[in-house]
This record gives sequence, structure tokens and C-alpha cells, in this order.
Amino acid sequence: MNRPHTRRRELIDVAMGRKPADKILSGGKLVNVITSEIYPAEVAIKGDRIAAIGDVKRCKGPKTEVIDAKGAYLVPGLVEPHLHFYHSYINVTNYAKAVLINGTTAVADGFYGPGIISGVKAVRFMIEEIKRTPLKLIFSVPVLAYLQNRELGVSPAPNSVSPEELMEMLDWPETLGLEEPPFLPITEKDEIFLDLFEKAVEKRIPITGHAAGIDIPSLNAYVAAGAITDHESTEVPDAIEKARVGLKILIRQGSGAFNAKELSKALTEHHLSSRGFSFCADVASAEKLFYEGDINECIRVAIKAGINPVNAIKMGSLNAAEVYNQTLEIGSIAPGRIADVLFVRDLRDFDIARVIANGEIVVEDGKFLPFLESPKYPDYMYGTVKLRRPVTPEDFNLHAPKGKTSVKARIIGAADLSLYTQELIDTLEVLDGVVQPNQSRDILRISMIDRHGETWEIGNGFVNGFNLKRGTIASSVNAVCENIVVVGTNTEDMAFAANHLAKIGGGKLVIADGKILAQVELPLCGLVSDEPLDKMIKKFNKAYDEIRKFGCQLTHPFSTLEFCCACGEIGKIKIFQGGLIDTEKPAKVSVVLD
Amino acid sequence: MNRPHTRRRELIDVAMGRKPADKILSGGKLVNVITSEIYPAEVAIKGDRIAAIGDVKRCKGPKTEVIDAKGAYLVPGLVEPHLHFYHSYINVTNYAKAVLINGTTAVADGFYGPGIISGVKAVRFMIEEIKRTPLKLIFSVPVLAYLQNRELGVSPAPNSVSPEELMEMLDWPETLGLEEPPFLPITEKDEIFLDLFEKAVEKRIPITGHAAGIDIPSLNAYVAAGAITDHESTEVPDAIEKARVGLKILIRQGSGAFNAKELSKALTEHHLSSRGFSFCADVASAEKLFYEGDINECIRVAIKAGINPVNAIKMGSLNAAEVYNQTLEIGSIAPGRIADVLFVRDLRDFDIARVIANGEIVVEDGKFLPFLESPKYPDYMYGTVKLRRPVTPEDFNLHAPKGKTSVKARIIGAADLSLYTQELIDTLEVLDGVVQPNQSRDILRISMIDRHGETWEIGNGFVNGFNLKRGTIASSVNAVCENIVVVGTNTEDMAFAANHLAKIGGGKLVIADGKILAQVELPLCGLVSDEPLDKMIKKFNKAYDEIRKFGCQLTHPFSTLEFCCACGEIGKIKIFQGGLIDTEKPAKVSVVLD
Repeated sequence: MNRPHTRRRELIDVAMGRKPADKILSGGKLVNVITSEIYPAEVAIKGDRIAAIGDVKRCKGPKTEVIDAKGAYLVPGLVEPHLHFYHSYINVTNYAKAVLINGTTAVADGFYGPGIISGVKAVRFMIEEIKRTPLKLIFSVPVLAYLQNRELGVSPAPNSVSPEELMEMLDWPETLGLEEPPFLPITEKDEIFLDLFEKAVEKRIPITGHAAGIDIPSLNAYVAAGAITDHESTEVPDAIEKARVGLKILIRQGSGAFNAKELSKALTEHHLSSRGFSFCADVASAEKLFYEGDINECIRVAIKAGINPVNAIKMGSLNAAEVYNQTLEIGSIAPGRIADVLFVRDLRDFDIARVIANGEIVVEDGKFLPFLESPKYPDYMYGTVKLRRPVTPEDFNLHAPKGKTSVKARIIGAADLSLYTQELIDTLEVLDGVVQPNQSRDILRISMIDRHGETWEIGNGFVNGFNLKRGTIASSVNAVCENIVVVGTNTEDMAFAANHLAKIGGGKLVIADGKILAQVELPLCGLVSDEPLDKMIKKFNKAYDEIRKFGCQLTHPFSTLEFCCACGEIGKIKIFQGGLIDTEKPAKVSVVLD
Repeated sequence: MNRPHTRRRELIDVAMGRKPADKILSGGKLVNVITSEIYPAEVAIKGDRIAAIGDVKRCKGPKTEVIDAKGAYLVPGLVEPHLHFYHSYINVTNYAKAVLINGTTAVADGFYGPGIISGVKAVRFMIEEIKRTPLKLIFSVPVLAYLQNRELGVSPAPNSVSPEELMEMLDWPETLGLEEPPFLPITEKDEIFLDLFEKAVEKRIPITGHAAGIDIPSLNAYVAAGAITDHESTEVPDAIEKARVGLKILIRQGSGAFNAKELSKALTEHHLSSRGFSFCADVASAEKLFYEGDINECIRVAIKAGINPVNAIKMGSLNAAEVYNQTLEIGSIAPGRIADVLFVRDLRDFDIARVIANGEIVVEDGKFLPFLESPKYPDYMYGTVKLRRPVTPEDFNLHAPKGKTSVKARIIGAADLSLYTQELIDTLEVLDGVVQPNQSRDILRISMIDRHGETWEIGNGFVNGFNLKRGTIASSVNAVCENIVVVGTNTEDMAFAANHLAKIGGGKLVIADGKILAQVELPLCGLVSDEPLDKMIKKFNKAYDEIRKFGCQLTHPFSTLEFCCACGEIGKIKIFQGGLIDTEKPAKVSVVLD
């Protein structure tokens, strides 16, 4: 893991009863995820590790601190096997607090967003930042910081991570995974990816997968090459297909993806072994972490869906640790493991009274206890939203073929609570040679603008699903594709939004009639805030209120906006800085059909 | 694993249907140990790996060989997570044949016996020898080749493996485990062992354990230090204690240890998750491998004991592969895995019609197909049973304190089908100052003689359980303690046996009245034969017949004899070259009390 932990040899004398434990957790019921039992047991802690469990009277000295669990269940610290912190828009320090409050004590991340914008030095910075927090990092080499959307033909950001750097990262001591290389470069036999896979397998570094919309031949090829997980299943038959060829299924329950209830049926109705299943959020907005939770929410939903509570907890702890071959360190309450223990009052509600991480109480009744300051960030992380020239309203015009008064057009179909986009075909009016949106039928302009300052590109298209009656919403942070994206009812507001994002160095904007109604500044790499979670959430709530006033009823409008952008193989058609892309072909497609 | 396998990138085109598979297994029912399902499915093979499973029509070309499973179950090649080949007394090549016939396609071994006698070069030789066979090796650093019985105070063999060599072996590319360092050096904080554990954990090399007779504090300390398995449980409560702290239980079903039936109750009656359980033989005589089997026998016994057949197969394949973090290579039938597939006609009988290893049919109806010759062995492996001087009958006399006509004596209590020895106390007559055996009460002489030629030591004691009415049996190969051990009814035959073992360079002898009634030569390191299995078995059967004629009713008399010798913490009192040892203290104890 990511810090020097108590040496195992120091635990021996404590376990033997020769030296006292630092702490003993007493009066709790142990949820033993290894044997699937629940029984009263104590836990003796030395430094940040567990020295012994069961009856540990022998480990108690006069200075041993006894912590009374008051009849609570002792649950292993939860393990989040796939979550991109930067999609929560908070910095690593505040993010650590947010997930720890939810009982997540270890998280897999590769910091690919900062890697796209500021390269490997930003990734390194984040690793060092997370080491200052009680959250353990399962560092996974951020393949997407190199790939971005190359496999779809989209040109990458200029300062992002190189293939050589990815190969080097596989040798970093922190590296415990290779983060979601998607299947297309494998089935297309991209040498860079074949080499990455080979080196990872050789070094026994787990390759987590990303197999959205995969067909059976590609699935077999992908697994044969070495992928071991997938988190993209939304339906049971797809999850079963993947499980059968050996993929471990990370059931995704995040912002814009709510699969825990449905996929639980693989276990409750189809009786698959739960061993190959765990949970992840993948993308979790700050509000989701604040109001709904992370893996704790997944467990709650799974239990409600009929999964036995011990199994659900096991999926959220041991199974996820197993994905990364980290069961000696995390995922259970057993001797030698890092002392990450939750006091849970009721298994079904899964309400966490206390979080102990690395042997210290870090959360008490939802309050984060340690004093934890954000670091000073390096200059290169600021001012990264750069336009080669100011954006004008005319830039958003999409021109029709000469002489046309209407055109058939491809329209991105966005849906609430889904990351997937459809391809809709509709007829749009042409005025003065410009294809027009149709607000009454909820067909709005959507555009992506290159924000790296070295080139000038804008991709214009149309989207259905936002139902804005006025104004514009815009963002400089999107999954994989960290350009400016803006959806709006008029080109003046859209231009203003794009230019303003460059001015503030990135963020989320809600604008109408030339006025900023809400603004969430994300100055670090144009992706994340340096403010604490509660302040951020206030700003986001204000933004959501304003967006709702525009008529938009989407639950997570910024998440939906993000996933209208080119992002791996998720969805059918998507916007990018060069126009529209059909991710199934994959190829650029024109908005206007013939 | 231990050979260059087909590169995963070569599987992609086959899985995609762009290039033909070499072979397709058709007409079988796949036992999917990942999802716990059984369903009809085909398997496409490229080189020695599986490229695709399910419907693989697209992978069939004009030259693709289709192998008809004729309705058989397709079961993953079995994985033996803990077996010492040299206890089968056959060389590695013949051993590979013997276990492959039983469906074991991968085996964990460290070759500790040869390591004790001839050091690291012999271990290296065995690794290279096994690479010439279709059996895959999970090489596990042979800690016992260094430790022997040092932790009991017994002096080691002169040419054995050093601690520095063990540390170096952890860096060998073949190394996938650290083989059963027992718990005493850990609880006693032996620096060599603490360093070995630390390096193994650091390198994520699994530490398989050996926790016979462990108490709760030691168990916690051992697991805290990093041990992940145990194979010494014989009773359910002990197995549950160990599983609860996180040890994976290898249910042992070998020569002298028959725990599969009893320990199955941990699953069938106590409902523990089967995930932490697998099987091993640990010690399997040649005859056991020939007549009873290896993991296939464990599966049979477990199914009979009420374990669901798919779970039993999973325990014998996937779970064992998981112990060594080798699930990407072995343990299931899935894309990318090495093509190790058994055709099993009936799951309950578990009769194996065919064994496919590395994509080749190697066994057909119990017959091993490939031509496989033993290598020429290096000279240093021969002539290793060396006596500093010939043994005389008088050497076996144990002298009583002066003036005594009878003494109370500690007697080793051996029992059939158990590796454990009891401490029996009985009164023995003294004649001419020499403590006498009592054949009528089945109290016989047992002695161990140093066979390394550099020192001269003999340990004399008494044993109950063999019930020999005449003659002597002797062996130069014993678990951990590779000296000459001899049990007999008269000192003349005992001396003859010891001297003859040195003459033939090691083996097993049955002698009466100065005549060799049966002889199994084991010239390689004095531990193993260079003859094929069937010849060996004939010799062993002859030996057993003769032993039975002596009145001995033990099922595996040579195994029982081996475990009367000092061997880790198994059993209470044991013989060694310095006398008797109490393994619980641990300390040398005198035969004569007061």
C-alpha cells in the first residue's frame, strides 16, 4: 500500500501476549468475511495493523486503550476497486475525507484526469498527496492518461502521459494495477497495449478492464490477453457472459450508473457464486459521496435487493481486495491486516458509527476527526484551460449543405441515470445556411472546444434530453475528454461560458442572458477544486437549482453532460472537438445525413 | 509457470475468429468453476493456451483438430498446492507421469529433500527436469532444505541449503511461493525467518504455512507475520480456528493423513465458505498415486462426504490456483489460461477419460502417452548415504543407569493412518545394563543413524505400533530428517540393514535373519529411484508383502516409519540421530525416565 506500515514482525510479541497491544476493540460482533460468520470477538491492534483477533485478553497491558464497540458489528474497511477521484471535482485530500466518511479505507485510482492535462508529474503529485491522508491508495497505472480517445481517432492532449511513461509506471513501487485499458486497442492489436498487457501479466499486476458494449469474440480476446475485471455491465445476461469467461464483475453504482439493484439478480436469481463480484462507483460526484455514499451505498442497495448482508459486505471488502491481490493487507479483519475497521450499528441500514483507518479513529458519527490540510499545489496545475483565441457565437454554427432548407441530422440522445447515449435521427430546419436547434422538441446545441491552447478545434452537434428552456451549462471536466463542453439554448451564452471557463482556469458554469447564475471553480488542472467538500457541495447545489429552473430534470446534469462527450466505448454517438463520433464503428460521423 | 507458453497476443486473432484455432474441444459439458455452473460449451485452443470458450465456430479452420469429448464433463486441470515429489520415491520425470495420470496438471513443490542432501544445485536440477515434462511447477522456495529440524535443536545436514540461498531463491523467476516455513521460528522471532517472511510478503510471494499443533496466540502471530495456508488440520474445530484468522485450509489426503472426509464437515455441517478450502496430498507414496490418486481422490472423497461436486472441483482447481495468485494461468477453463482440461465421464466417480495438458492429450484411459525419458543425473546425487564407520549390533544398545533391572521408558506411540506420534510410558527390562525391547507387547527398537558421513551419531529409542514378529525394516528417506532409520526385532538385522543402505546408496529394506527379503533402491540423493513407477510399485508391493508376513498390519508402514522421525512439529515424541525429542517443548528428552 502507500505508506510505511507497522512491520509484521512487531506484531508477533503482541499476538503472543508478550507485549501489550496499543488498542483493543472490545464489545463488537466480528463480521468475518473469510468464513462468512458473525460472532463476538475482540481485535488487538499494534501500530496500524491488527495483531490478533478473537479472545485477546493476553494482549491487554495497563496502557492499552480499550475502545468499546457497544455491540456494533465490526466490519472490514471497505475497498473501492475503481473510482476516479477527479470526477468528484474535489482535490485528493478532500476526496479522502469524503470517502473515509463512507467507510472506504482503500481506493484504486490512477489519477488519469490530471495525467491527461499535466502529465506524469501530476500523477506523482497526487500519489504523494494521498499518502498524507489516512486513505490507502491502490495505485493503478492510468492508461487513459495516454489513450484518451485515440482508439476512436480523437487526438490527445499535448502534455499527457506517454506510452514509455506507462511502461515505467508499471515498475513504480506503488503500482498495484493497470487501470482500465479498454478492449479496442487489444482486439485491434495495438502494439503499445499488447506490450503493456504483457508486462503487467509478467509482473503479476492485475489489469482491470473496461468492456462496455463488447461482443463475444472481443470479450474472449480481451480476457485471453489478460483483463481481469469489468465494471460496465448494466444487465444480468451481459454480466453472466463476462463472469463465465473469468472477468470479475465490479457492479457499478455511481453518478449516472445505478446497476447494483439489477445486477444483484445475477446472485439472487441466477445463483452465480458471489466470489467474482464486487462494487465500484467509477464516477461519483461530490454530492453523491456526500448524500448517498460510495461502497456503503452499494452494500445497502445489494442487501435491499436480497443479497445476504455478509456476502454484500464481502463483495465490498474482501472481493475487491482480491482483485488486486491485496488480501494480506486489506479486505478483512484478521491478524497482519491493516487495522481498518468500521463500527456498524445495523447491517441492513449499514449505518457507520465509527471508521477506524490504520488503527486510528478517523470518523465518528459522520464527522472526520483528523486535522488534514490540502497541500500547496504546483503552478503547472493552474491556468490549464487555454483557448487559442476567444470563442465567438458564430463558432457554434453548424453549416448545412448549400441550398438546403432542412436536413436530417444525427442527434445525441442522452437519458437520465445512464451513461449511454443513443443515436437519434430527426429533421432540423436550416436558416441562412445554419442548421437550427429545436428547443420545443428539446434539441439543443452541444459543442466541444479544444482547451489545450495549442490547436483550435470546435465540434458542434445537437443533443436531446437536457430540456433547457433558457441559458447554458458548461464544463471543463469530462470523462477522458477534458475539453470544454457546453450545451445551451443560445450561442451568445455558449460563447460567454467557454471564454469564462478559460478565464477562471476551469470549472462548471450555469449561465443565462450573459449572467453567471452559478459557478463551481475547478482550478487544479481545470478538473478539481481546492475547496473543501461542503463548500463545493453548496456551489453544486446552487448550480443544480439554477439548472432545474431552466427546465432540466436530469438527476445529475453535469454527469450526463460529461458522458455526451467522447469517452471510450460507452454509448453510441458522442461529441468531441472534431465533431460527432460513432463509438461502435468507431469513426467520425457527420451531424448532417447526406 | 515453468516454460515459455504461447504468448497471449497470439490468442487474439483466434478469439476474434480471424485465424483458426489449433484444436477445438467439442461435445463436452463445461464445469465452470468461476460461476459454479455446468453447461455445454466448446473450448478453442491455440498453442498451449485457451483462446476462447462457449460457441467457438468462428475459430474453426480447415486444419483445426476437433476433439470430441463425447458428452464428458470438461474439468480444469487439477492443481496440487502442496506435495513433496520425493516422498513418492520416484524421480521428477516419473512423478510427473504419475500425477498427470491423476489429472493433476500443476503442482507446488520446492524439492526440499534433494536440497537437504545435495543443496541448491539439486533443487535447480529438479526444476529443469520438471520443465521437460508436461507438468507445470509452482516452485516454492524449500525452507525445510535449510531448516530441517533446527527449530527442534537437531543439527542439519552438511551440504544443505543456506539462508542466503533461500533469500536468493525468492528472486528466481520460477518462484511462486515460500514452502511451509513452520511457525516456531516465527513465534521465536528467528531473524532469518523474519527476513524471509518480510521479503516474501514484499515481493507478494505467498507463504504457505505449516501449523501442526499450533496454539491460538502462535496462530495469530504466524498469520500476522504473513502465513496464508495450513495443511495440518485433522479436526474441524482446528480448521475453523485457522480459517477464521485468514489461513486457507489445504485439506490433506495423503499417505498417512486422511482428512478429507472429516474436514468436509467444515463446509457441510458448519457451512463455512468453501472459498478458503482446497486439497493437498503433502506426502503421497508411489502406490498411493498409483492406486488411489492425488487431488482426484480428494475430490472423490469430498463429494462422497456431501460437498457439491462443482465446489469440490473448484477446491481442487481454482482455489488452489488462487493460493498462489495463479488464476490467470491455471485453475479454470477460460480464455488465456493454459489449456489443461480433463474429460471426466461422471462427476461423482470422477473417472478421468482424458487429460489434456498444455493443449496436448497426455493421458488416455489412464495411459500416459508422450515419450518421456528420465535425464542423466549428475554424479553428486549418487552415493550420498555415507557412514563414518560400519554400524555394529552393539550400536543399537541403549544403556540403563547402573544397577537398574528395569526402567520406566518413553516409547514412541505410532498409529496406523496417522502422522502423529504419542508419548507412551512403559516399564522395560534391563539385561546386562541394556534396556530391552518387549516384542510380546510390541515394543521394538527404533534408531536413527547419521548418514552424511562427516559425523557419527546414533539415536536409540523404542516404538510401539509396528508389531513386527521378526526382522527389520529400514529407510534412508524420511520427512525432513533424511538419515537412516531402522526399526527391528534384533540388532544384527538392524546393523546389516544400515550398512546395506550405505552400500546401495539409499533405499528401503526389509530384512530378516541376515537376508534381504525386499529392497527398493533409491539411489538419487538416497531419496528417490530412477526407475519407472510400475517397477517401483512392484518392489514396494513385494516389500509390503514381506512386512505383512512379519506381522505388521500398518497400511503404509514406511510412511509411519518416516513420521516416527523428527519432522517439524507433527506428533509428540520422535526419534532423531541424537536420541528422542519432545516436539512440544521442543527439547531432547531421555528414553529412560528418572
